[in-house]
Amino acid sequence: MSVIGSVIADVDTPALLVDLEKLDANIRRYARAAAEAGVRLRPHIKTHKTLQITEKQLKAGAGGVTAAKLSEAEVFVEAGVNDIFIAYPVVGREKARHAAQLARRCHLIVGVESEQGIRQLSDAAVEAGATIFVRVEIDSGLKRTGVVPEAAEALCRLALAAPGLQLDGIFTFRSTMFAGAPSKDARVLGEQEGQLMVALAEQLRAAGIPIKAVSVGSTPTGFAAARVPGITEVRPGTYVFFDRMTTQVGTSSAQEISLSILASVVSRPAPDMAVIDAGSKVFCGDVIPANAGLAGYGATTDGRGVVVRMSEEHGIVQLADGFAPEIGEKLAFYPNHVCTTVNLSDEVLVVQDGVVQDVWPVVARGKRQ
Amino acid sequence: MSVIGSVIADVDTPALLVDLEKLDANIRRYARAAAEAGVRLRPHIKTHKTLQITEKQLKAGAGGVTAAKLSEAEVFVEAGVNDIFIAYPVVGREKARHAAQLARRCHLIVGVESEQGIRQLSDAAVEAGATIFVRVEIDSGLKRTGVVPEAAEALCRLALAAPGLQLDGIFTFRSTMFAGAPSKDARVLGEQEGQLMVALAEQLRAAGIPIKAVSVGSTPTGFAAARVPGITEVRPGTYVFFDRMTTQVGTSSAQEISLSILASVVSRPAPDMAVIDAGSKVFCGDVIPANAGLAGYGATTDGRGVVVRMSEEHGIVQLADGFAPEIGEKLAFYPNHVCTTVNLSDEVLVVQDGVVQDVWPVVARGKRQ
Repeated sequence: MSVIGSVIADVDTPALLVDLEKLDANIRRYARAAAEAGVRLRPHIKTHKTLQITEKQLKAGAGGVTAAKLSEAEVFVEAGVNDIFIAYPVVGREKARHAAQLARRCHLIVGVESEQGIRQLSDAAVEAGATIFVRVEIDSGLKRTGVVPEAAEALCRLALAAPGLQLDGIFTFRSTMFAGAPSKDARVLGEQEGQLMVALAEQLRAAGIPIKAVSVGSTPTGFAAARVPGITEVRPGTYVFFDRMTTQVGTSSAQEISLSILASVVSRPAPDMAVIDAGSKVFCGDVIPANAGLAGYGATTDGRGVVVRMSEEHGIVQLADGFAPEIGEKLAFYPNHVCTTVNLSDEVLVVQDGVVQDVWPVVARGKRQ
Repeated sequence: MSVIGSVIADVDTPALLVDLEKLDANIRRYARAAAEAGVRLRPHIKTHKTLQITEKQLKAGAGGVTAAKLSEAEVFVEAGVNDIFIAYPVVGREKARHAAQLARRCHLIVGVESEQGIRQLSDAAVEAGATIFVRVEIDSGLKRTGVVPEAAEALCRLALAAPGLQLDGIFTFRSTMFAGAPSKDARVLGEQEGQLMVALAEQLRAAGIPIKAVSVGSTPTGFAAARVPGITEVRPGTYVFFDRMTTQVGTSSAQEISLSILASVVSRPAPDMAVIDAGSKVFCGDVIPANAGLAGYGATTDGRGVVVRMSEEHGIVQLADGFAPEIGEKLAFYPNHVCTTVNLSDEVLVVQDGVVQDVWPVVARGKRQ
């Protein structure tokens, strides 16, 4: 029996609900912000992993998309997306061959940050008769992947000289999360990110290296970075949905969060506690509440219930004074981190005026290779 | 191109590897332990979610299986499994109808722990012309779902009187994890679990309530519980694979862990750090290392690398002195919690003698309703 046409009270739980109007407003707002900053918006599809939202983003003016992995990108290439950036260091012979195959089917740009990566991609591109565009990843402070700015020139020269590859530019990602803890200075971090990248691009150009793309990161920092003159591209992901984390760092308001988790109360072990049918198979566990300055793993949209403990199928909810949901009652929650929450789900239900209008499959869920 | 026949060095990453010999040994050992304790082994399929391992468990002597959710159970009913216990309180009209449909296709037992659950299941069973077997869930100390022992009699009487339902017995689950922290006294906890349940069953029988099944929990506590005379059934899940958690509490040795995660080094940002292509989309985040007494979210099988930080596609690995894996090198890791790790994967690769022998789809992955 299709869920389309159901009112929310009749939806089986747990389920992810997307508020269509909020989603559309978020997509419009960030498209406008990119246009105002004069940069290309290349949204990261890791947040939603759906074809329908990708289509909305492209219609709103996005220039291509960003993915993290080749298998994730492939889903979108098969759906007709023809300009994809894998913002991740592609390493290994299997992956290089995979990249070369994809590069024969679309304009494929991939991240590099090591000599090994460049050589393997070059070999595979030559073997496949493909051209793979590459961008060198710069570590702008996150201390994850990417080379320090001083090491960029040598890698760029290597990429320039590598048959089958075309150097496209440089990219970075600077989140507000450091060692698992968020910073509220998203704007300051973004400006630093933008300034560092523009300075490096100019330095590389002065050394004779043609740098086209200067691409920056995330929903919290990206637009402060994008407004630095010289930045060409921004790659936010979370902005389509937002979550408790983006709200915590001031990038969104709770009213702008467009994705919620519907769950049912299955037990009321104490007057101030409820157990819901959604645990760590539904709410992501990758944001540690204590580190993120958040209470719990999720909270009801009105804030009166907080998921304080989880097992796989149980969420233990602390209830505010006077909040007494009954067994069987359905509650809507906002997740801490929406990307990993969506990755746990096979589909999202699209809701307008309290009725399920559509079901969108999370087609790129679980694509990690 | 099929991965079957590949040596591990040629497997694209990340990938889950199952060591066939260790898996088979674990299945045999627990089947033997159940036979020795004289109880029915009803393994929980949430750990592996595959048809192939279910078949091995049934062949080794398991009497039916356990699942947590109806949608999960349905996958196995469709594959021909005909005796399933949903060890979870089934609540809500949609779920009650789903249970009644399943009960027409197999011997279905479900958990109840509220008046609402019993009434909804009864209504749905009558409407569908089905018989649903029910067990009352007892809270033996985990403080999650289940009623206190004193409340069991009233619920049992309600279930006995409900048309369409048949009272089958009582069940509990007592993990070694309390509020996210493990106890090493698995044996003591198990004995308490068993004694509490047997005492309650005898008390209920003395009050005229027919209690057939007295069913106890988990891989760490289950067999200590099962050896208490009067226990009829044990429901371990993790024992097929084991993980860092079961090893931490002394239930398994590291050598018995049969599932590992293969990942590639994509970056070497510092002499003592590596970044791998597996983050929170691969390693579960639901066991907080600090609470569990573990170092990190996973560790190489030789213990020389520990995943100390994750983002979705990046694992930041702290390397021991003298351990210097190269970019592109593949490393195998044990996860903290194998059940949620498997839930993130579409398939597991079955390895024997260093060669991939088979690919088993994780058919019940993501079944949360």
